[in-house]
Amino acid sequence: MNTVDIINKVVLKKELTDEEISYFVKQAVNGDIPDYQVSAFLMAVRCQNLSNNNTSVLTREMEFSGDVVDLSGINGVKLDKHSTGGVGDKASLIIVPLVAACGGKVAKLSGRGLGHTGGTIDKLESIPGFNTEISITEFIEIVNSLGGAIIGATGNLVPADKMFYALRDVTASVESIPLIASSIMSKKLASGADAILLDVKCGSGAFMKTPEAARELAEVMIHIGKDNGRKMAAFITNMDIPLGHNIGNALEVEESIRTLKNDGPDDLTHECVQAAGVMLYLGGVADSPEDGENMAKESLANGKAFAKFREIVQAQGGDLAYIDDTAKLLGNPKSYDVISLESGFINKMDTLEIGMSSVMLKAGRETKTDKLDYYAGITIYKKTGDEVKKGEKIARLYAQDESLFKAAEKRFLSAFKIQEKIDKENIWPLMLHKIV
Amino acid sequence: MNTVDIINKVVLKKELTDEEISYFVKQAVNGDIPDYQVSAFLMAVRCQNLSNNNTSVLTREMEFSGDVVDLSGINGVKLDKHSTGGVGDKASLIIVPLVAACGGKVAKLSGRGLGHTGGTIDKLESIPGFNTEISITEFIEIVNSLGGAIIGATGNLVPADKMFYALRDVTASVESIPLIASSIMSKKLASGADAILLDVKCGSGAFMKTPEAARELAEVMIHIGKDNGRKMAAFITNMDIPLGHNIGNALEVEESIRTLKNDGPDDLTHECVQAAGVMLYLGGVADSPEDGENMAKESLANGKAFAKFREIVQAQGGDLAYIDDTAKLLGNPKSYDVISLESGFINKMDTLEIGMSSVMLKAGRETKTDKLDYYAGITIYKKTGDEVKKGEKIARLYAQDESLFKAAEKRFLSAFKIQEKIDKENIWPLMLHKIV
Repeated sequence: MNTVDIINKVVLKKELTDEEISYFVKQAVNGDIPDYQVSAFLMAVRCQNLSNNNTSVLTREMEFSGDVVDLSGINGVKLDKHSTGGVGDKASLIIVPLVAACGGKVAKLSGRGLGHTGGTIDKLESIPGFNTEISITEFIEIVNSLGGAIIGATGNLVPADKMFYALRDVTASVESIPLIASSIMSKKLASGADAILLDVKCGSGAFMKTPEAARELAEVMIHIGKDNGRKMAAFITNMDIPLGHNIGNALEVEESIRTLKNDGPDDLTHECVQAAGVMLYLGGVADSPEDGENMAKESLANGKAFAKFREIVQAQGGDLAYIDDTAKLLGNPKSYDVISLESGFINKMDTLEIGMSSVMLKAGRETKTDKLDYYAGITIYKKTGDEVKKGEKIARLYAQDESLFKAAEKRFLSAFKIQEKIDKENIWPLMLHKIV
Repeated sequence: MNTVDIINKVVLKKELTDEEISYFVKQAVNGDIPDYQVSAFLMAVRCQNLSNNNTSVLTREMEFSGDVVDLSGINGVKLDKHSTGGVGDKASLIIVPLVAACGGKVAKLSGRGLGHTGGTIDKLESIPGFNTEISITEFIEIVNSLGGAIIGATGNLVPADKMFYALRDVTASVESIPLIASSIMSKKLASGADAILLDVKCGSGAFMKTPEAARELAEVMIHIGKDNGRKMAAFITNMDIPLGHNIGNALEVEESIRTLKNDGPDDLTHECVQAAGVMLYLGGVADSPEDGENMAKESLANGKAFAKFREIVQAQGGDLAYIDDTAKLLGNPKSYDVISLESGFINKMDTLEIGMSSVMLKAGRETKTDKLDYYAGITIYKKTGDEVKKGEKIARLYAQDESLFKAAEKRFLSAFKIQEKIDKENIWPLMLHKIV
């Protein structure tokens, strides 16, 4: 097996053999293939693409480049969901108890936030006592008894992805559908679920700028999952509008609690119900996604979803006093009102800039070692499609350090495109496409 | 300036600015851009190509990445020729004295052989005493007084090419027209000539497999040269047939001497006359290439070309006794006759395999440190288009170590495609195209 021949086949758009892909991934992770050859391979894939079958084999080899999580101790179909990363996307916090309340088994491994999008693990850690680092054995026990649990990924999961991603990041090879798909799916496969719902975000702040590109990515990931024996479904959703109103860690937990109490924002509630419906269908609990949606709506209405959330928080060590009294959860940060400087209709929100303004308030991290302010964040009162008047309050910023407000306000305001007339044709709906 | 942005522009086929190219080459050569980014850039160029203007600027930046040869001490237009590397290609040995005899000024910097193609410097060093390492000052003096000299390239010429080539070689980025063109032309520009004739080889053993690809490469190199103020011309020639009959160092000098005495093989003589004609035209010595060809033919016929060769050999320290008695030059190696195993017409010769069989005899190097046998090589009696009979002698192998013959014979014979009928349509002429 020769590394140069393997790279050359990618350049010439020739199909690689399974053995060649296996050799390449193993030798790269071992350090037997130098970085400059790995980066040339990744660039060749970015420029020339890779067949779906080759991408599937690449993903499997990446999956087995390190530890894989053994969830076989969980009875029934193990469900997972994955979002490619949205601003204000607290859907996992809601969907896990919602699906569990309806009889599904959700074993959710999540990550921390970096850059403009937050991480589920950070959000949960804003609940005092909540432990996201419990052992896999304890995790499986909770999923078996309660139907759901959420932990941070531990162990040496997918070192091939860590290596490839670090190189892609510095060699302009990030934006490649087979590389994005194999990066996401290798981690999902290694996390051990049987059925996976993908939420592929689309818009200016996402990897995929257009619904067509997002759909292509979703279809490649579905191919990979099915080829590796998993049940798959995907949503293509609009990233150019924050989900719900709150951005920030405690702020998003609080909005999730309201939603689980059936008192949340419509867009967030509707998206979570749709996701739960598909997951219940994939898990064999519901006969159809619609049937699953009805089960989810019912469990929101009858209090079972919120009750399940309390059970999970308690099982993972979280202090229920902060769940039952969300004023405690939200703390006493300083606040600052953002006033619109113009009148008109909001025709676009750049969520990348909005996410970055929340990072400036310390709700997120710019670098891995940054310390979070769990109370920091933004509550948005006006979103895309809404009319605003000059002088009207459009958002409130929260932070323990009030010196951060001015700069964050400036960046936040730069994200809004306010125009005289509403541009309905260019405002996308939240849900762009479903592949079930 | 950001390296990732520069690579990304290449991927997106956006024009780079001159400053970006300058930054990239300088930082790469300094070691401030790591190998994995350089290889990603090179792979992006291989996959996405580079505009002619960007390639020209890249070449100029590579030229000035190290020392450049100052030939301004030579009076008149300084001429050079460059071949992309043929098997049995001794044309430079003939063209330099031929053009000098007609009044041109040829300042030829040459290289050593590696792999299946030989090097002019190795060939000249088979003449006892011939010094290819004279100083630039002495070189300029000889060119001024005699009209021609040939030395090996010295000093730190084009370190960017050395670095890029080493990475391209191990990352499947060799076969790229802008990278091949910038590699060749950066060295030609750094060698200081005013006018350059390129001989772009084409065929199974060459970088360029088809006449169209070879022509494209030639046109990019001509663009680079003209853009950098040089006069340019190019021949596209067929590599699938050795030039003349002899392959090997002393063997090729001997055949060159016969050609300079107007007693050489027709194909070799004709190609050298055409090249000399164009160079004399570029140098302003002849009014047209045809005029130049006539001057060249005359100097072969009247003995001036051979006399000039003797003068140059003498000026560079070579022992004329070996020139005047070529039996001395050829030495007393062992020899071995290769007999055809079949009857028919030779429809194809794989010169890569023929070149490698001469390397097996020690006429060339497999690795840079291999020691040459100057007497080793091959005299070919039958070439593409010729009829052969089973049992007929088609070549003679020479080497001081006779244990090498059997394996070299096997490889040599594998290069011949002998068929019942002649396949005239697929036999290319030696000269495929001229761009003057």
